[in-house]
Amino acid sequence: MKSIFYTRFFILLPWILIVIIVIDIDTKRLSVRNTASFYLSRLGNVHGSNATSLPVIYAITPTYSRAVQKAELTRLANTFRQVPQFHWIVVEDSNSHTELVSRFLARSGLRYTHLNVFTPRRFKRTGMPRATEQRNLALGWLRGHRSVKDKGIVFFADDDNTYSLALFEEMRSTRRVSVWPVGLVGGRRYERPLVEKGKVVGWYTGWKADRPFAIDMAGFAVNLQVILSNPRALFKRRGAKPGMQESDFLKQITKVEDLEPKAKNCTQVLVWHTRTEKVNLGNEPKRQQDSVYIEV
Amino acid sequence: MKSIFYTRFFILLPWILIVIIVIDIDTKRLSVRNTASFYLSRLGNVHGSNATSLPVIYAITPTYSRAVQKAELTRLANTFRQVPQFHWIVVEDSNSHTELVSRFLARSGLRYTHLNVFTPRRFKRTGMPRATEQRNLALGWLRGHRSVKDKGIVFFADDDNTYSLALFEEMRSTRRVSVWPVGLVGGRRYERPLVEKGKVVGWYTGWKADRPFAIDMAGFAVNLQVILSNPRALFKRRGAKPGMQESDFLKQITKVEDLEPKAKNCTQVLVWHTRTEKVNLGNEPKRQQDSVYIEV
Repeated sequence: MKSIFYTRFFILLPWILIVIIVIDIDTKRLSVRNTASFYLSRLGNVHGSNATSLPVIYAITPTYSRAVQKAELTRLANTFRQVPQFHWIVVEDSNSHTELVSRFLARSGLRYTHLNVFTPRRFKRTGMPRATEQRNLALGWLRGHRSVKDKGIVFFADDDNTYSLALFEEMRSTRRVSVWPVGLVGGRRYERPLVEKGKVVGWYTGWKADRPFAIDMAGFAVNLQVILSNPRALFKRRGAKPGMQESDFLKQITKVEDLEPKAKNCTQVLVWHTRTEKVNLGNEPKRQQDSVYIEV
Repeated sequence: MKSIFYTRFFILLPWILIVIIVIDIDTKRLSVRNTASFYLSRLGNVHGSNATSLPVIYAITPTYSRAVQKAELTRLANTFRQVPQFHWIVVEDSNSHTELVSRFLARSGLRYTHLNVFTPRRFKRTGMPRATEQRNLALGWLRGHRSVKDKGIVFFADDDNTYSLALFEEMRSTRRVSVWPVGLVGGRRYERPLVEKGKVVGWYTGWKADRPFAIDMAGFAVNLQVILSNPRALFKRRGAKPGMQESDFLKQITKVEDLEPKAKNCTQVLVWHTRTEKVNLGNEPKRQQDSVYIEV
């Protein structure tokens, strides 16, 4: 009798232990995983299972060679590195990839696509819209490399603006075309879409108020599927007037009444149209005087 | 005979399973923990055991109210958030903490100290050194709140410069006073200390080459213990000439031959003296025209 009891006990005990251990692992592993994915989700490169289901933000950044270029790209990358599911499309105004930008991107820790197209000299005049060719090349790349299966948001991120991290979480839910205020633009503290009952009904702006979309390039995002289903929507050179690039582009893909207001019904400034001063190089020696070459 | 075999089998099997499970948990938990701490170490707020043994970087940032202030602080915070063991000392040029800066810091996710001191009006003239009172107040705070037990590095981080993350890892090993090149300063692409056999022997600069330390505020860091053991070392108003703030301060705590060159013997530019354009608010309406107040 006693021997049967012991046998049963020794058979049951380990099985009970196994059950306890398995339950214990599951809770612990879950909590470790949650902690990890919380921090992972704050980083751009690596994504937990939640992050990969987010639409990718494709930020299109035209850039050109100048004294402050690497500095500008450095602070942009410092911001973008904290945006989950981020893909940076950098388009140089040059005949080929420059070494500076290539090296910079390779070390940035960001997912990126590096493109280039040279702006014809006749378009490089004051009053002419800038970066048209670069933005269009990026749109062409998206149309050639992404399909209806891909979830994404397209945003035009000029290289001298200032972006808060909150901006990217606002734009991520864009269904077709979303809009929000932009700080320090048009000669005012900010410009913004005026919203009534969740719809855009006008524009608070100090400049060319009669534009169909009185909005800066930094003030809107477009769902990738809208870009793909309007394959001819592009930024225009022919007939384009200064400051009309945004309107010319947006009227090809949406209507004012369909715009989705973000940033608490367009009452928060989460992006600033900052401008960096042109650098004074008046004391730069005519000939190389330093003993080494230093990239700046 | 058969029955004994089965009994033994059923007793041994679960024990073997337990051993396998326990071994399995240990490996998995270890790898999850390693992955997590790798990413945690890239973030400023939370630190693994490695990060806490690093000296804290105290970045002293004087700031003043202007149109681009929040934009500048936003991109600074975006950079600093990725620096482990970081403590931001923000000193406003104001009679009290402004709401904008208080709110901004509280939401920044950074460890910070918020101070303020108003620059007397007689010192607010062109040609006068700027932010003297703010930097000195921060030095006073460090002397009052830190002791010989604290490991730290002190760095003067103006709010419009551009900082690469690599800069902070270079300065972290500062024993007394370290130096490195600064981009886009003094009318040149860069200024830098000239180094021979690991010692600073001169300065590559296009401006006031006869300064004892021909270096910008962004070009050096000081070990916290040097700040504490030289309690009277401060930035000077009396007798201070424009552009001499750095030299006046550094000669109180070090000698040129004792400087520690960083950034590959001062041949890499990891910080840029960028300047943000003053904002044109020419189209701002005289009276509040918008229906809501929006912070910019």
